Amino acid sequence: MSNTFGTLFRITTFGESHGPGIGVILDGCPAGLAVEAADIQAALDRRRPGQSDLTTPRKEADQVEIQSGIFGGYTTGTPISLYIRNQDQASHDYSHIEHAYRPSHADYTYDQKYGRRDYRGGGRSSARETAARVAAGAIADKLLAQYGIVVRSYVSQVGAIAVPVGYEQLDLNLIDSNTVRCPHPETAERMTDLIRQVRDRHDTVGGLVTGVVTGVPAGLGEPVFDKLHAELGRAMLSINAVKGFEYGSGFAGTLLFGSEHNDAFYTDEAGAVRTRTNHSGGIQGGISNGQDIYFRVAFKPVATILQPQQTLNDQNEEIMLAGRGRHDPCVLPRAVPIVDAMTSLVLADMLLRARANKVK
Amino acid sequence: MSNTFGTLFRITTFGESHGPGIGVILDGCPAGLAVEAADIQAALDRRRPGQSDLTTPRKEADQVEIQSGIFGGYTTGTPISLYIRNQDQASHDYSHIEHAYRPSHADYTYDQKYGRRDYRGGGRSSARETAARVAAGAIADKLLAQYGIVVRSYVSQVGAIAVPVGYEQLDLNLIDSNTVRCPHPETAERMTDLIRQVRDRHDTVGGLVTGVVTGVPAGLGEPVFDKLHAELGRAMLSINAVKGFEYGSGFAGTLLFGSEHNDAFYTDEAGAVRTRTNHSGGIQGGISNGQDIYFRVAFKPVATILQPQQTLNDQNEEIMLAGRGRHDPCVLPRAVPIVDAMTSLVLADMLLRARANKVK
Amino acid sequence: MSNTFGTLFRITTFGESHGPGIGVILDGCPAGLAVEAADIQAALDRRRPGQSDLTTPRKEADQVEIQSGIFGGYTTGTPISLYIRNQDQASHDYSHIEHAYRPSHADYTYDQKYGRRDYRGGGRSSARETAARVAAGAIADKLLAQYGIVVRSYVSQVGAIAVPVGYEQLDLNLIDSNTVRCPHPETAERMTDLIRQVRDRHDTVGGLVTGVVTGVPAGLGEPVFDKLHAELGRAMLSINAVKGFEYGSGFAGTLLFGSEHNDAFYTDEAGAVRTRTNHSGGIQGGISNGQDIYFRVAFKPVATILQPQQTLNDQNEEIMLAGRGRHDPCVLPRAVPIVDAMTSLVLADMLLRARANKVK
Amino acid sequence: MSNTFGTLFRITTFGESHGPGIGVILDGCPAGLAVEAADIQAALDRRRPGQSDLTTPRKEADQVEIQSGIFGGYTTGTPISLYIRNQDQASHDYSHIEHAYRPSHADYTYDQKYGRRDYRGGGRSSARETAARVAAGAIADKLLAQYGIVVRSYVSQVGAIAVPVGYEQLDLNLIDSNTVRCPHPETAERMTDLIRQVRDRHDTVGGLVTGVVTGVPAGLGEPVFDKLHAELGRAMLSINAVKGFEYGSGFAGTLLFGSEHNDAFYTDEAGAVRTRTNHSGGIQGGISNGQDIYFRVAFKPVATILQPQQTLNDQNEEIMLAGRGRHDPCVLPRAVPIVDAMTSLVLADMLLRARANKVK
Repeated sequence: MSNTFGTLFRITTFGESHGPGIGVILDGCPAGLAVEAADIQAALDRRRPGQSDLTTPRKEADQVEIQSGIFGGYTTGTPISLYIRNQDQASHDYSHIEHAYRPSHADYTYDQKYGRRDYRGGGRSSARETAARVAAGAIADKLLAQYGIVVRSYVSQVGAIAVPVGYEQLDLNLIDSNTVRCPHPETAERMTDLIRQVRDRHDTVGGLVTGVVTGVPAGLGEPVFDKLHAELGRAMLSINAVKGFEYGSGFAGTLLFGSEHNDAFYTDEAGAVRTRTNHSGGIQGGISNGQDIYFRVAFKPVATILQPQQTLNDQNEEIMLAGRGRHDPCVLPRAVPIVDAMTSLVLADMLLRARANKVK
Repeated sequence: MSNTFGTLFRITTFGESHGPGIGVILDGCPAGLAVEAADIQAALDRRRPGQSDLTTPRKEADQVEIQSGIFGGYTTGTPISLYIRNQDQASHDYSHIEHAYRPSHADYTYDQKYGRRDYRGGGRSSARETAARVAAGAIADKLLAQYGIVVRSYVSQVGAIAVPVGYEQLDLNLIDSNTVRCPHPETAERMTDLIRQVRDRHDTVGGLVTGVVTGVPAGLGEPVFDKLHAELGRAMLSINAVKGFEYGSGFAGTLLFGSEHNDAFYTDEAGAVRTRTNHSGGIQGGISNGQDIYFRVAFKPVATILQPQQTLNDQNEEIMLAGRGRHDPCVLPRAVPIVDAMTSLVLADMLLRARANKVK
Repeated sequence: MSNTFGTLFRITTFGESHGPGIGVILDGCPAGLAVEAADIQAALDRRRPGQSDLTTPRKEADQVEIQSGIFGGYTTGTPISLYIRNQDQASHDYSHIEHAYRPSHADYTYDQKYGRRDYRGGGRSSARETAARVAAGAIADKLLAQYGIVVRSYVSQVGAIAVPVGYEQLDLNLIDSNTVRCPHPETAERMTDLIRQVRDRHDTVGGLVTGVVTGVPAGLGEPVFDKLHAELGRAMLSINAVKGFEYGSGFAGTLLFGSEHNDAFYTDEAGAVRTRTNHSGGIQGGISNGQDIYFRVAFKPVATILQPQQTLNDQNEEIMLAGRGRHDPCVLPRAVPIVDAMTSLVLADMLLRARANKVK
Repeated sequence: MSNTFGTLFRITTFGESHGPGIGVILDGCPAGLAVEAADIQAALDRRRPGQSDLTTPRKEADQVEIQSGIFGGYTTGTPISLYIRNQDQASHDYSHIEHAYRPSHADYTYDQKYGRRDYRGGGRSSARETAARVAAGAIADKLLAQYGIVVRSYVSQVGAIAVPVGYEQLDLNLIDSNTVRCPHPETAERMTDLIRQVRDRHDTVGGLVTGVVTGVPAGLGEPVFDKLHAELGRAMLSINAVKGFEYGSGFAGTLLFGSEHNDAFYTDEAGAVRTRTNHSGGIQGGISNGQDIYFRVAFKPVATILQPQQTLNDQNEEIMLAGRGRHDPCVLPRAVPIVDAMTSLVLADMLLRARANKVK
């Protein structure tokens, strides 16, 4: 069941990097939601390899097929099956890693856990699995749209190059105005240069994605263990290469005193309840308070580098191994739609769960 | 079900801060584990209020009662019910917050979600709930001991005062040698001074807890969504006042290049598989690789401060409100046993789940 | 987790027959439901031992204590903990079954599964555990009442003595008018005589309970696996001594042809959709259709008889064993409130789950 | 999540009768199990339409495609996706039921629940969904074979024609020796004649399937709610057209007295623990005791009959409706592999769950 995520709005993904294909079953999507393949394809195209010179040049059309659950243009309440065939499948030679353990990859741990593994392109441990999440996330996003909830994320740091201002000072409509998906144009250019340099010296670089959710009504999130930020954190940490998660004031908030950190409540002109600061990140006691939700996700540099590295084979013999083929020098640009998808999936689930909070 | 945590080794907690008591049902603990009330009490005593001048002077004996699941000194495989009566219960006047929303507390969000709340001492949103987790964690810890797995955590930062070295350069046996639970004596003293200053000016301060798990066999953790670090992150983020989680190289790792970040495999003298560095934090692809697991948890400063603050009442009228009674100026020292407990609960669950990985 | 039942309206029970007590945590009850201890006690009193000469004379007050989740007379949305102390606890000598396997009891299977067991009065396998279900069921019943859903069950057969007519020809208000809980007075008398005869010859007898649910709106029940009747069946089969479940036309329906079995739809004077017959038992495709739901549950004769029987001890040596103490000659009268409780729990859960069926 | 079955060995099915196809994701199958498409196809061929003159002549090859989870002939521990394309898909005209509610079908209830439905051939409510279960069940069966557990079921009654002896007096190797799947040749012939008569008068008939599981070790099944027979019952009741379930002595057992019903323990020549009778059906307290497990499942007559019936349309207007096309006059022969599959799925799940019963 470790391949299932969500309680009421629930996905189960399957597929290996170089098997016939990957896919997802979305169970629990309410009936009556208008969904077209084009909605899903648009999300997949943002994650697709080969979309720019900053990503792997590998070609995958990532065409989605809807196999069930949608009839006459609307969801029917039955499981929605989305399938993406692997095109780039047969074409490679993976014999060099059949018996080798790539450093900081999952080859060794899968072998230890299962006694065998599909070694082709990382098999199940490949980030290709996230395409299935993005497909399902597009449907979650359509559900959230019915409630005015908007989910967006962007690249806020690559290596040491960071956006100098907070999300509220950015025009998030600019996220897709450049290939690195950073809505701060000058910073986006510097990030792009860095990624190209790193790529050219056969190395990789990490960074941060910032997520922002607006229009969230107060009351989403289930205490005690399924706090809204705990589910968001788990969702982000389940994405390949993620090493950390923080929301609201996050790690920096530990440097403030309580008198500085507390968010004072007030009512705005419209009589709406607001807070003067938002160190809480829109979540108090694990439940949304109606303010913006924001968080940051740390991605490590991609483990596959086109340089020789010392490692072991499955006989525990020391060998030298270098990555081959076409890989991303930086996952951040393609990570944005994945962060969007996981955020939407968590919120859609919490939206449905909240319907059981009161007697009527 | 949001009050349940774990898949096979599973806890459900209940109780409010000032109701009759709090407790936990542990379902799924294997039969044949020797457990005494004293084992559980020892863990509770580390979390107990009034244990030092750095914590709330509130008096709670936190005596645990075993109501089921243990017979003749051993677990029987049936649910283990642990109950802790609230002693300090009736004694307070909470009328000042019956209709007021304390800044950065869960009063407002609970009202929005449920339409009502037990306002006495925060009710269900009080960190008192974590005593139930600590009680169950003590049993998880006994299970892990059967496998040589050792879970420890300590206070690594308070405000801006941080332990200057990594966990591997510390003697973790010194954690309980001081009341702040920092195994670096000089730093512990400076942390203690800071907490006292903050307390005396009626303010609060946050910080970091570092968790370390040794003796973990390779193969624990369930891809894709239930990655070991994702479950640890979710567990930590479910603890009151936590704002962030990172494991291994964490956020700092985003500043390294892939060629610097990758952990090279080698075999030690004993022929065991090791990595030369451990930026992976003992987890690769969501599965333990046999190296030490370590992570950091960010705690915000306690929201209850004994100073007047501007806020709203449940009529949305602006009011001034000051905390009353006895509160912790810094939760870090008492957070250590909670982090220990949640870590042990995650590992015990993963230990049992891993038994289903192979055909035989 | 095998001690948890339900998805959104969810109970977890704990406790052994002769431990300190038994209890239940109800997680997921919506906030705002008026609940008093008296509501729960009334249900427990129907299941209580010693209530008539047809049941065990064992004395248990079964006084319920509410430990959490209810504040100011209303549910708060937090877990509701209900606890029942065992009074009759210490008083017995169970040494005769410490090492013996009672025929058709769970002594042998618990030993095989767990390697040890609490042998006092059957420990966890005792039907005493069902008191916890009845307590939680009383709260489910209050939720259903908000929607006009009424759950009732009665004893329809004891041994070979059966009620000669269907439920629709009975006045179900007469269920508690006699101690056997059969709303057909003449049959109730004959059942009573049979139970007394059986009791006097130190034997036991089984029978059937018929359950009826009225006022159920169309649309409850979740295909494919969580069909309403599948959940009801599972719930009933989880009750001690139950050997079979059928709903609507049940086993007898297999003797009809399709042309006889199909329920023709029509609209009544009020314009409501009805069926001319109800072989479907109010459920079609696993979803309620608005007609009455009815089903039958088969209970075997109690395994504990006060006669010597041949069996084995835990050394696999053949021994003679006779039941001691005070036992029920027939569980049917006390099974009625248990069937009621499990039915209410299933419907309350389905009621909440159905809230997620449509987009808005 | 209502389309998911199982806890550790877990399936999620998807697909509609006349959509692109149907399928299943099996998550939690242990790594290292040898599985070929042929193993799965053999099971599907037993359920396939058009296999004999007793079933619908509709042509569906039901060719299975393995999309993930199996590499080099062995399971890898990752999700196994099995897909079956619908061939007979486009070819029909379903306009006559687009707005009509077929009696005793799920058309009306799906509309009430979801506000819309895929009306083509019943859409999701069609028994075609069970092909996905059969495919997954074939893999469960291979896992059970590793432990010597053998699952078999057969048609024990059609209409009023019943096998006159118990399963232990039958040669279960004869199950597939006739098209009705009854191992009692004379009875099989009479059943066949009845089904042909019923078919020729455009009617349908129901009956019983008896399930038998041998080689089950003692200790499978999880008290309290997940009793082995409760999970089997739920599994059977989730199959289309099932109206009842009983195990061991079942409903007939209610006519016995305790002194007749109890199963006396003894040890056989080999020193194995046995019971002299098996009214318990191999399950005591919800846990297997090592004796044969047997149960009976009641199937109603198929609701689709080729005769005009009175019913309503979605405007609640009374109309006459007659079934069209090609349907099964009796589902029993094709139900056998479905009962086998659900039985194997329950046992495989319990086998894995039991691994967590003891500390080591």
